[in-house]
Amino acid sequence: MSTAWTSRYAQRTKGLKSSTIRELLKITQRPEMISFAGGLPAPDIFPIERFQVACRRVLEQQGQIALQYSASEGYEPLREMIARHTERYGIKAKTENVLITSGSQQALDLIGKLMINPGDRVLVEAPTYLGALQAFDVYGAEYVSVASDENGLRTDLLEKPLRSGPKFMYVLPNFQNPGGTTLSEGRRHELVLLADRFGVPIVEDDPYGQLRYEGEHLPPLVVLDRENLKRDSGYSMGNVIYLSTFSKTLAPGLRLGWIVAPVEVISKLVQLKQGADLHTSTFTQMVAYEVARDGFIDEHVKRIREVYRERRDVMLEALREYFPAEVSWTHPEGGLFLWITLPEGMDSEELFRAALAQNVAFVPGDCFFARNGHPEEANRHMRLNFSYGQPEQIREGIRRLAVAVKSQMAELQPAHLG
Amino acid sequence: MSTAWTSRYAQRTKGLKSSTIRELLKITQRPEMISFAGGLPAPDIFPIERFQVACRRVLEQQGQIALQYSASEGYEPLREMIARHTERYGIKAKTENVLITSGSQQALDLIGKLMINPGDRVLVEAPTYLGALQAFDVYGAEYVSVASDENGLRTDLLEKPLRSGPKFMYVLPNFQNPGGTTLSEGRRHELVLLADRFGVPIVEDDPYGQLRYEGEHLPPLVVLDRENLKRDSGYSMGNVIYLSTFSKTLAPGLRLGWIVAPVEVISKLVQLKQGADLHTSTFTQMVAYEVARDGFIDEHVKRIREVYRERRDVMLEALREYFPAEVSWTHPEGGLFLWITLPEGMDSEELFRAALAQNVAFVPGDCFFARNGHPEEANRHMRLNFSYGQPEQIREGIRRLAVAVKSQMAELQPAHLG
Repeated sequence: MSTAWTSRYAQRTKGLKSSTIRELLKITQRPEMISFAGGLPAPDIFPIERFQVACRRVLEQQGQIALQYSASEGYEPLREMIARHTERYGIKAKTENVLITSGSQQALDLIGKLMINPGDRVLVEAPTYLGALQAFDVYGAEYVSVASDENGLRTDLLEKPLRSGPKFMYVLPNFQNPGGTTLSEGRRHELVLLADRFGVPIVEDDPYGQLRYEGEHLPPLVVLDRENLKRDSGYSMGNVIYLSTFSKTLAPGLRLGWIVAPVEVISKLVQLKQGADLHTSTFTQMVAYEVARDGFIDEHVKRIREVYRERRDVMLEALREYFPAEVSWTHPEGGLFLWITLPEGMDSEELFRAALAQNVAFVPGDCFFARNGHPEEANRHMRLNFSYGQPEQIREGIRRLAVAVKSQMAELQPAHLG
Repeated sequence: MSTAWTSRYAQRTKGLKSSTIRELLKITQRPEMISFAGGLPAPDIFPIERFQVACRRVLEQQGQIALQYSASEGYEPLREMIARHTERYGIKAKTENVLITSGSQQALDLIGKLMINPGDRVLVEAPTYLGALQAFDVYGAEYVSVASDENGLRTDLLEKPLRSGPKFMYVLPNFQNPGGTTLSEGRRHELVLLADRFGVPIVEDDPYGQLRYEGEHLPPLVVLDRENLKRDSGYSMGNVIYLSTFSKTLAPGLRLGWIVAPVEVISKLVQLKQGADLHTSTFTQMVAYEVARDGFIDEHVKRIREVYRERRDVMLEALREYFPAEVSWTHPEGGLFLWITLPEGMDSEELFRAALAQNVAFVPGDCFFARNGHPEEANRHMRLNFSYGQPEQIREGIRRLAVAVKSQMAELQPAHLG
């Protein structure tokens, strides 16, 4: 029928497959389902009242601007606020270093578009964020995967992969998705020094950095890069591009993220953004600015931390209570996820089907490894989200999941012994 | 400094240059400037009150949904409304044929990503929409340009270009940007038949279709394709993908456009959209739905038509009054632009500088031709927008522009005679 189209797709769409996570999200919409699959913030603490006031004010005072086309770089006061806020973490950024994107996902797409020739290698953690792989895949990326452990990316394994000449590294140092792990301070230093030595730039993705529930804030790579390597200008960002988002601190439904990068890189990205969507919604940018301003976002982040810390603790406690001793999991100091390792011989995709029968869902670990980067045990993992459900749902969901785990283990036992 | 980045850009960014229009828009922000350069809707008729009510209602009744992640395909009621509205024009579309995009610009980017291998040819009108060229350029498009006249694309010139095997054609049949011309009904029939004969699919871009100020609505290509070629299913879209947007009928600051396409094509585009920005803002989609619903958008479009028709007429009258007889222009039956042809020997980029000195701006015609598609007289054109300015500003702007034109013509005369 529409073969004129379907027979003419570009090479880059080969192997394009629907994101398992997105497909899962559809299955798990049923009300009886308890889903740990998504990466959804808790909607019950969205600051809806504050949004009401912000919308009213923006439309009343600047309606004609808010509904009109605007600059590809983003809404100036919002860029200035982001530059000011990131400076708290020692990231010396000016307004001109900030590009507003339509969510962090667009930041990844624009970086892929800017950097990746077909066949170029990108160095990623194993496991890593599925959405980054999706964004880079269409530009023909190949991957070099480096293992991680409870302290994040194994920097002791980095030298050989760096020597193989990756175009850039993609790293999530804080409360990694899906691992829930945090890159230790020592490894952060090693990472930026190695990156500089081998001339491989770093994309530092930090969507969750503000959501720390215990322990001390660790310096971002972008700061260590400048300090360790004595970059000559305070506003040159050196070797590291830094990404973050309002999706986890205000609301993902706005689709607002940002890139902090050297001015020369921002100016190229702006041109790519013009071709991609002209600019991010003027209205949502102005509303987000009104919501966040005057310290509100800091107060709100404190509230999010309290709520998510409790949910994480409820999940950890339920795991200890219900799960068999053969199963292990990470202890996230922040963020939205924890990462479970099943006993040898178990398969998380089979478990997924068993779990659905118990009305509980998660994402099988296999999704989070780059092509050619799947370790043998990739399918022994699952990612659990703890930000979305209410505490009592989390407890009940873990109880149900434990039933599925135990029944799978029981099936496994004879074969394994046999 | 940041050479680790700048020395590593992908091939596709070669020759990337900032959009002249976007750069111009910055220069022309000065209050004393009268700008015919942008493609901006009139902000004075944005339905701000209606947006106030819509925002309040969405946040009150569905705040937790509006601020959360949502489906990549778009907000279901909005997709359904768009399917219903496009059906008025005979376009048999179901909800599943509609993908919401972050403005029409993203639709162009996704189509480029889906279809274009480096070196593939895209058949375009000469002149054509600059943003489409920007979107397709990064995927390595080459172009086959076909001349147009006051009746749109010259279908009598199409056979040879079609024979050369373009991947698809990109056409703006209604009130073309920048030409202001409308493809005649006879040519529409010819176009879809030729496209089918040579197996070349069509992207029909229709941002202005509803903004007709005189004459009769003409059937979209997507409808003629189905009717002429007796496509077997009412909901198969055959050879034509149809694009439109709320940017000209509600507000461009929302960044809301859409693609109507066969289901198989939509499903591929959805996957590309996931990687590009996950989904378009849930909040703006729900607000747009609330604003548009219950017939409001139809009433509002009537109001826009009245206002823009008057502005067009004021511009046409001022052109007749102030411009020398050697200059000609198109008579747009709708849309936002008209296209001026200067006398032989004149250069619209030189004129642009002279015009800025008179505090009036436009876009030189040269920008609107694809690489290798520049006819000799490309720089004898300029695009003027008539939707943005107030009538008295339009008159005054044309008066100033006439001063610049006459002074350039006077300079030209001796050389031309000499």
